[in-house]
Amino acid sequence: MAVHIGKQSVKFDLCAVVTATASTVGTKEGEGPLKEYFDVVLKDNLAGKDSWEKAESEIARQNISLAIKKAGLKNEDVDYIITGDLLNQCCGSTFGIRDMGIPYFGVFGACSTMGEAMALGALLVDGGGAKRVVAAASSHFCSAEKQFRFPLELGTQRPQTATWTVTGDGAAVLERKGKGPKITGITTGKIVDMGITDGNNMGAAMAPAAADLIERHLKDFGVAPDYYDVIATGDLGYVGRSLVCEMLEQKGITLGDRYIDCGIEIFDRETQDTHSGGSGCACSAVTFAGMLYSKLKSGEINRLLFIPTGALMSPTSLGQGESIAGIAHGVVIENVR
Amino acid sequence: MAVHIGKQSVKFDLCAVVTATASTVGTKEGEGPLKEYFDVVLKDNLAGKDSWEKAESEIARQNISLAIKKAGLKNEDVDYIITGDLLNQCCGSTFGIRDMGIPYFGVFGACSTMGEAMALGALLVDGGGAKRVVAAASSHFCSAEKQFRFPLELGTQRPQTATWTVTGDGAAVLERKGKGPKITGITTGKIVDMGITDGNNMGAAMAPAAADLIERHLKDFGVAPDYYDVIATGDLGYVGRSLVCEMLEQKGITLGDRYIDCGIEIFDRETQDTHSGGSGCACSAVTFAGMLYSKLKSGEINRLLFIPTGALMSPTSLGQGESIAGIAHGVVIENVR
Repeated sequence: MAVHIGKQSVKFDLCAVVTATASTVGTKEGEGPLKEYFDVVLKDNLAGKDSWEKAESEIARQNISLAIKKAGLKNEDVDYIITGDLLNQCCGSTFGIRDMGIPYFGVFGACSTMGEAMALGALLVDGGGAKRVVAAASSHFCSAEKQFRFPLELGTQRPQTATWTVTGDGAAVLERKGKGPKITGITTGKIVDMGITDGNNMGAAMAPAAADLIERHLKDFGVAPDYYDVIATGDLGYVGRSLVCEMLEQKGITLGDRYIDCGIEIFDRETQDTHSGGSGCACSAVTFAGMLYSKLKSGEINRLLFIPTGALMSPTSLGQGESIAGIAHGVVIENVR
Repeated sequence: MAVHIGKQSVKFDLCAVVTATASTVGTKEGEGPLKEYFDVVLKDNLAGKDSWEKAESEIARQNISLAIKKAGLKNEDVDYIITGDLLNQCCGSTFGIRDMGIPYFGVFGACSTMGEAMALGALLVDGGGAKRVVAAASSHFCSAEKQFRFPLELGTQRPQTATWTVTGDGAAVLERKGKGPKITGITTGKIVDMGITDGNNMGAAMAPAAADLIERHLKDFGVAPDYYDVIATGDLGYVGRSLVCEMLEQKGITLGDRYIDCGIEIFDRETQDTHSGGSGCACSAVTFAGMLYSKLKSGEINRLLFIPTGALMSPTSLGQGESIAGIAHGVVIENVR
């Protein structure tokens, strides 16, 4: 039975095993530093469909199916799919998994969705409610730009604080039994809003939530940052990462080189011109399903604190003068017996 | 420990107790047949704010706070809030609970959200991940019409198959210990899409998912419809309810008078002119938090199968020719020792 510890955390007893992952990405991500780790790199970002939204659903469909296949399972073996995305009413996910016939919990955590999905999946497996769960998240640069910012055809100039929404889907299969690294704990985020209203500076909007979560996590579990081989936030980019370091330094917490951000890892700063880095639900999802999971399997990483980060807003809320609320969800994945 | 039974269900061991509920509704709902059961009837559907979206957030804020208070708790006693709504990027919920400082799992199940939130909440409490969870859902007639259909000012005529989005928020406090009816099981829905593309006929779009869920639930739990005092779907309205009865009759399942639909209960057909009935996340949420919970407490109902129903779509998906996918989540609430 899981134990609720500290203020925001759960320590698992029957830790869910991450038995397989799958990652499918767009063309730009397939040219970046993590390319060797992805299962599928699309040749066409429309994935053979006639709209960006349908493309995102198709990517989700193909990638979740691939994750199930890689785990040696069939659709009927999976008790739940927990997934979400950035599109209005989470349509990327809905239409992606529509024909799978698998019970579905839709989640919305903006770009923190992969963390939320993995946390809930681990809670279900540990609690006996499920033997096997697929946790996933998707985003698409073109559907996100169209929905949150401007039509691509406008060629709008992006400021240096802006991040680039990752095209792709990352999925993880969580099982009660099997081989692989295990989810040993979670720390669930509360909303932190420091009043940022610039939709082109999501890193700054999310950084306070990430810093708050890391501080809380270390207290709840009674560990220092050096317990972890890697601490990886979701999509803060260069701007957000430096803010997290600064805020935690003020509280006497030094993360050091073990702290990486998936948005910084996924694109090359010099050659790929994404400004502050990558973002979107898929940013942390594909980086986990690709590079981080691969290094956990090989033993290069044995203890990972994975913290997808989300900016809670809509074009309507921004237009009505609301600030951008941040959230972060922490998931501990370890190689344990 | 929970036990996964049949294909889509979980039977609980440490059943979460629904120790308190709160319901806040708009003016029209406050004039309907269920008015005596609601905690708060707004005098002003703007709730003192300057936009419908901000009003929805304010209603969510006030109602969730009221539920926590009615359970005799403070914010810091609550381990998680699980909530969602219909607005793009679930902003109704986000900005409603922003300042509460409670760990937050955002969910999206369209109008089935209350069922999803209660199911996940019960899984968390049973599994040891939480002692106390608030499950909630909100919707607002005006923000929903504006976002999904037409500006209210246009005075668009609504067809007879259309339903009326309920304004309000329903919240339930689920605890490991305490007095009240208990969540003894859940059946989680898969997406069922029969190809309906009429955004003004949500009842027909959701009915196949509801019928599928009921059939599955009865098989998984090995019970007949008469095990329950009341079987309540979320917001199918007159059109959807009759379709569910018809589809189940064809499979030899007769639900009879014990089968009600929250969308039919909440408005008066003769005097309130809502056409096919009520809908929206709040429709099932406030009907449960109000009338159904009250009757469970008094013993007028001892066994309830509560099935919020959702139509998974967005104006974009409809515009691109996608059909409306349906989902339904079943929650069993019983008076047991």
